[in-house]
Amino acid sequence: MHRHDAVVIGGGIIGLVTAWRAGQRGLRTAVADPEPGGGAAQVAAGMLAPVTEVQYGEQALLELNLAAARRYPSFVAELEETTGLDLGYRTCGTLAVALDADDRAQLRELHAFQQSLGLASEWLGGRECRRLEPMLAPGVHGGLRVDGDHQIDPRRLAAALVRACELSGVEFRRSRVARVEVAGDRAHGVVLEDGTRIAAGQVVLAAGSLSARIEGLPARALPPVRPVKGQVLRLRVPPAYAPFLSRTVRAVVRGGHVYLVPRENGELVVGATSEEMGWDTTVTAGGVYELLRDAHELLPGITELPLTATQAGLRPGTPDNAPLLGRGALDGLVLATGHHRNGVLLTPLTGDVMAEVLTGSAVPAQAEPFSPDRFALQEQQA
Amino acid sequence: MHRHDAVVIGGGIIGLVTAWRAGQRGLRTAVADPEPGGGAAQVAAGMLAPVTEVQYGEQALLELNLAAARRYPSFVAELEETTGLDLGYRTCGTLAVALDADDRAQLRELHAFQQSLGLASEWLGGRECRRLEPMLAPGVHGGLRVDGDHQIDPRRLAAALVRACELSGVEFRRSRVARVEVAGDRAHGVVLEDGTRIAAGQVVLAAGSLSARIEGLPARALPPVRPVKGQVLRLRVPPAYAPFLSRTVRAVVRGGHVYLVPRENGELVVGATSEEMGWDTTVTAGGVYELLRDAHELLPGITELPLTATQAGLRPGTPDNAPLLGRGALDGLVLATGHHRNGVLLTPLTGDVMAEVLTGSAVPAQAEPFSPDRFALQEQQA
Repeated sequence: MHRHDAVVIGGGIIGLVTAWRAGQRGLRTAVADPEPGGGAAQVAAGMLAPVTEVQYGEQALLELNLAAARRYPSFVAELEETTGLDLGYRTCGTLAVALDADDRAQLRELHAFQQSLGLASEWLGGRECRRLEPMLAPGVHGGLRVDGDHQIDPRRLAAALVRACELSGVEFRRSRVARVEVAGDRAHGVVLEDGTRIAAGQVVLAAGSLSARIEGLPARALPPVRPVKGQVLRLRVPPAYAPFLSRTVRAVVRGGHVYLVPRENGELVVGATSEEMGWDTTVTAGGVYELLRDAHELLPGITELPLTATQAGLRPGTPDNAPLLGRGALDGLVLATGHHRNGVLLTPLTGDVMAEVLTGSAVPAQAEPFSPDRFALQEQQA
Repeated sequence: MHRHDAVVIGGGIIGLVTAWRAGQRGLRTAVADPEPGGGAAQVAAGMLAPVTEVQYGEQALLELNLAAARRYPSFVAELEETTGLDLGYRTCGTLAVALDADDRAQLRELHAFQQSLGLASEWLGGRECRRLEPMLAPGVHGGLRVDGDHQIDPRRLAAALVRACELSGVEFRRSRVARVEVAGDRAHGVVLEDGTRIAAGQVVLAAGSLSARIEGLPARALPPVRPVKGQVLRLRVPPAYAPFLSRTVRAVVRGGHVYLVPRENGELVVGATSEEMGWDTTVTAGGVYELLRDAHELLPGITELPLTATQAGLRPGTPDNAPLLGRGALDGLVLATGHHRNGVLLTPLTGDVMAEVLTGSAVPAQAEPFSPDRFALQEQQA
C-alpha cells in the first residue's frame, strides 16, 4: 500500500493534465489507467473552435471556451518545450459553410449571434469560400470564416502529456480502478482491479464517459455523465492532392454536423456522429455512410482519398453540455470530467483549475459556474 | 537446389488446388508464395453464381461456369472430408432485385436471356421479393430468384486447400518468386527472392493479378492478365437482427453492381467495386461510400449493422473475362490464371484440368476454349 497526495482515476488527456500540474506543484501523484494516453483523445478530431461552436444559452461555457482558446498557445509552448514533442497545433482557422437555403439561414443566424457577442467571424459568399478552399463543391452558397478557431492533434497531445507526467514524477498504475475507497464520508484512495490499494489524500475522478460507473462512491457523489458516441473517419491526402484543405471545413448537412480537419502530416479527420447509444463503440454501416455522404456532398474530391481508419469514441456528456470541475459531494473527491465536445479545448484550463483545487486554493473564478454541485442544487430546488 | 516435378507460382486458391491435385497424382510439387492461402480469396465474397452473372457473348464461359457449379458439391465433400474443415458452402440461392424502371428492364432482359439458354430462374414481383427477404427496401419492384446460385467462404476454402496440400506432401516455399528460369526455350524452374533455385519439370503460373509481372519469361509467354480492383465491406449481423438475409441479394444500382452475401456465422459481405487502377489495393472514401450508398438503398436496415472491415483486392482480368488454362507459349510452362470474377467458382474445375495437364494428358474438352494460345492466335490473325 502506497500513500499519495492525489490519485487520478483515468489517464485520458484530462486526467493526464491534472496529474502533470499536480506533480509540478510537488504533490505525490498517481494515475490509474490500463492505457494512459488512450480514451476519447484517440478518436477526437481536435478542433479548438469556441466561436464556430457557440450555442444559444451556453454563454457561460463560451467564456470558459474562449479563455481556453486564449490559453492554448502558451500551454502548447510549455508542453512542447518540456517534452521536446510536436503537438500538431495548427492556427489554420475554420470555414463553416452552407449547402442549401436552410443551412444558409442557420449559418446566417449563427453569424448574427456571434456578432452580438462580439466574436470575430466574417460572412463569405460561395465564390469567396471556394477561393479559400478550391475543393469545395459548387453547391456551397456561403460560409463563415472564423480565423481564430484552430486545431491540435489530440493523439500527440495525449502522448506529450504522458511524457510530461513521467518527467514530473507522476506514477502510472496500468490497471483499471475497481472502486473508490470511502470511509467516514470521505474518499481515501482507490483499489485497483489487481487488488492493489492506493491511498491518497485526494481522489480525482477524470474517467471521461466512464465517470458515473465508478464503484464505491455514494449515489450523490456520482457525476451526471453519460456517453455520447461519436464515429469518425480518417482519410489520407496523397501528395498529388495536397493540401486538399488548408483549414478546418465544417457544415450542417441535413441537420447533422460534419467537419473535416486537415493535419500537417496529410491526415484528414472526418467527424462526427453524435449518438446516445450507451457504452457502445461499434463502428456502424450507417455512421460511416452518413459521414461519407455528407463529406462527399461538401467536398466531392474525397472520393479519391484513401480511407485509412474508422473509429468510434465516447464523449462524456452532461445535462448542460459543460464540464464538472472542482470538489465533489464527498470530502477528498475532486471532479474533472463531463467535458463533452470540449475536452481537447479545455485541457489546458482544466490543468490550471485542478492545480489550484488540489493544492487547497479556491476554484478560479472562471471555473466557478462549472462546480459539480450545480446539479445537486438543481435537484434540491426542483 | 531441389528437383520437383512441378513448381506452382502463387499460393492463392488456384495455385493451391493445382498443387493439391498434382500432389494427389504423385507429382513432387512445390508452391512458392510468401503467404500461402492469401491473395484475392481473402477479399472475395465467394458467390457461385453462373446463372445470375451470365453475360451476352460469354456462352463458352457459361458452360465452364455451369460445369464448375455442378462440380462444387462433390469437391466440397472431398475437401471437407480430407481436411476435417468446414468450408462454409451454403446452398442458399440468390435473389437479384431491381429498384427503378431501368434496373427492372435490365433484369427482365437477363431473365429472358436465361430462359433462352434453358437456365432456371423465376421472376418475382416486389412483394414476393420482400416475402423472401423482409429487409428489402419498399422500393424493390421486382427480382429474379435463382435457387441454383450459391456461395462458399473463400477464406475457409483457402485455409482448407493449404491443409490439403500439406496432407498430400506439397512443399511450401514462403518466398516471392524472383524469376522463372528459362533455357533452351524451356522453363526449368524458378528462383526465389532469397536466391534459392527450385528446378522443376513444369512451372505453373498461378499468380493471379500478378501473373503478367513475373520476370524471366519471354514476352510472348506472358499472359494478358491485368488487375481489376474490387473493394468490399464486411458487416456483422448481431443476433438481434439475425438472419437479416437468408440468401445472397444483389442488384444493379445506377449501373454499378452491389451484392450482399450472408454467411452462416453472421458475417455479411458487401461487394464490390470494379476499378481499373493498376496494382492498387487502397481502400478509398469513394469506394466505401458507393457500396454503402447502394447497399443502403437496397436494405435500409444495414444502418444498424457494425462495419467490421473494409478491403480491396485484385481480380486477374483478361481481355475476354475468361481464364487461361493449359500449356503456355513455352515448353514446361503451364498457366492457371486470369479467372477474373470467377476464381472461387472455377477452383474445383481448375484443379481437375491442371491434374490432367500436369500428368501429360490432353486438356479436358470443356477447358479447350480457354487455352492460353487463343490470344496469340488472335494476334496472328489481326
